[in-house]
Amino acid sequence: MSVHTDQSAAAVTVLGLGPMGRALATAFLDAGLRTAVWNRTPGRDGDLVARGAIAAASAEEAVAAAPLTVVCVVNYDASDAVLRQDAVTAALKGRTVVNLSADTPARARDTAGWAERHGVRYLDGAIMTPTPTIGTDDAVFLYSGPGGLYREHQGVLAALGGSHTHLGEDAGRAAAYDIALLDIFWTSMAGYAHALAVARAEGVTGAELAPFAQGIAAILPPLFTEFAADTDAGTYSGELNPITSAASTMAHVVHASEAHGIDASVMRVIEGQARRVIARGHGTDGFTRVAEVITVR
Amino acid sequence: MSVHTDQSAAAVTVLGLGPMGRALATAFLDAGLRTAVWNRTPGRDGDLVARGAIAAASAEEAVAAAPLTVVCVVNYDASDAVLRQDAVTAALKGRTVVNLSADTPARARDTAGWAERHGVRYLDGAIMTPTPTIGTDDAVFLYSGPGGLYREHQGVLAALGGSHTHLGEDAGRAAAYDIALLDIFWTSMAGYAHALAVARAEGVTGAELAPFAQGIAAILPPLFTEFAADTDAGTYSGELNPITSAASTMAHVVHASEAHGIDASVMRVIEGQARRVIARGHGTDGFTRVAEVITVR
Ligand SMILES: NC(=O)c1ccc[n+]([C@@H]2O[C@H](COP(=O)([O-])OP(=O)(O)OC[C@H]3O[C@@H](n4cnc5c(N)ncnc54)[C@H](OP(=O)(O)O)[C@@H]3O)[C@@H](O)[C@H]2O)c1
Ligand SMILES: NC(=O)c1ccc[n+]([C@@H]2O[C@H](COP(=O)([O-])OP(=O)(O)OC[C@H]3O[C@@H](n4cnc5c(N)ncnc54)[C@H](OP(=O)(O)O)[C@@H]3O)[C@@H](O)[C@H]2O)c1
Repeated sequence: MSVHTDQSAAAVTVLGLGPMGRALATAFLDAGLRTAVWNRTPGRDGDLVARGAIAAASAEEAVAAAPLTVVCVVNYDASDAVLRQDAVTAALKGRTVVNLSADTPARARDTAGWAERHGVRYLDGAIMTPTPTIGTDDAVFLYSGPGGLYREHQGVLAALGGSHTHLGEDAGRAAAYDIALLDIFWTSMAGYAHALAVARAEGVTGAELAPFAQGIAAILPPLFTEFAADTDAGTYSGELNPITSAASTMAHVVHASEAHGIDASVMRVIEGQARRVIARGHGTDGFTRVAEVITVR
Repeated sequence: MSVHTDQSAAAVTVLGLGPMGRALATAFLDAGLRTAVWNRTPGRDGDLVARGAIAAASAEEAVAAAPLTVVCVVNYDASDAVLRQDAVTAALKGRTVVNLSADTPARARDTAGWAERHGVRYLDGAIMTPTPTIGTDDAVFLYSGPGGLYREHQGVLAALGGSHTHLGEDAGRAAAYDIALLDIFWTSMAGYAHALAVARAEGVTGAELAPFAQGIAAILPPLFTEFAADTDAGTYSGELNPITSAASTMAHVVHASEAHGIDASVMRVIEGQARRVIARGHGTDGFTRVAEVITVR
């Protein structure tokens, strides 16, 4: 525990009260931790204060209230706008910031450098699950930065529920996992939104499609494991499903979508990647060889 | 059962011995059904014959051997090339074809029309799971076309294992579900292949990323159900995750990818869709409102 704990009004401060920041503050309060809160736009803390949160009048007052500040705002332009104000930076000296906002590995490393220059103890982090999971076993948190600092605050962070993984000392590592996982998440969601549009154009409702979409979600996990191993090994077996077959079904999606006036740009790009693999002579390989054609070497 | 059953050498014929056709023929044989097989390119039937399959010398001989022919080739250009040969069409008269090849709803309906004109009893279908699931409880088969015909052959088709769903009389309906589900599948797989490339560029191996990718796969099913209901209702709540927040994380994926020389065209398109939703004044809505901007009305 930090030397500040005894004198501090709170055990933890949450900066940023969007959907996720509010979920974090709620979980801390539910765990019985004294929690200070602040948000750029006032008026987001009403129900948190009713549950016992300390409403800070400014970001500097908020960070001064606790040894540990958790920041959760839209991105690092936003966390910079809050943390890099002189008064806030001064108040943070010797205290710990855990930045659970999302951004790139480069921005995370830049912020770790800023923190080091200003005597701020800094952990970077990422949240991989939606707000309703916070405080439950289903929440997933990633961290990177000094391992000792992570272990020091692990106890308080555990109040957020779920699994907490320290990925290494490089501040950018949590963000590296974050962008890769967000890549999977948003691409999948985009595919789903598109599928709902195509289905609707074919007279199939979301309610009708959803049970079968669950079936697709169920076949992904074993394929994810298999394809990760393939990519690591550089083997892309198409024995069970050659990329020529995949490209054919991608073309069906494009044609059926566009016949209904639905934009199929995403699938056009994906089919194009598959066609490039085939044109390079790898038509009997599996789909994951696209990882090679999208990477400049 | 069809009138042909007694005189026929086989209970079922499989045309097309790619990975999926071979899996289907194997499941029929494992279920103890006499199975005739044929493939355009010879030499794919060796192990099937060793397991008791009847090797047909031509497609017409194959379809004449059984009351029910299951076709599973790459697409409907391929199934047309097989079925619409005069000798094959003649041999099929009065018999049933179940076309489990993938293609668009339009092609399925066109084939149903051809079948009707030639006295061929026709069911369209689609297989929604990978080859290793065939013959197991995990297989998922969809059908559309005459309900009576489906019920007549249901018993033999059940030998393929898993769940079998008749979606309606419109021959195109199975293909409509198929393209929507393939849309989800391939878009998700493309996101995963891309994520593996980005992770690798950040020094994160597939083996390291995969367990967390499983976590992403685990959060999709409840979101699929929720967003299907949203889309049906035309409500796109961003209360838990506004599309402005989503677009910000999409931009991180684009920037981090391109900084490593990795093509980010797919995420650029997806971010562009999200930005269009925001530009139309729906920034506080959830991501699935993109279903509206991708559809021409
Ligand atoms: N929601 C989820 O399901 C989820 C899941 C995993 C990770 N995350 C991540 O968690 C972080 C927060 O997400 P969120 O869902 O709470 O919503 P969000 O819309 O990403 O962030 C909203 C918060 O950012 C603040 N903010 C934006 N620009 C600011 C600026 N220039 N200066 C100060 N504060 C600024 C907002 O303050 P105002 O109220 O003043 O605008 C608000 O507190 C994001 O990085 C997101 O990617 C969210
Ligand atoms: N594999 C899977 O995991 C999977 C899952 C669900 C659905 N499916 C669907 O099942 C169908 C078959 O897939 P598959 O995995 O077996 O591999 P495929 O590569 O899609 O199809 C290969 C089969 O198509 C035949 N073919 C291609 N062009 C032909 C033509 N012009 N005339 C006659 N035959 C032709 C091939 O014959 P030759 O050997 O002579 O080339 C071979 O029998 C596809 O529609 C696919 O989308 C596959």
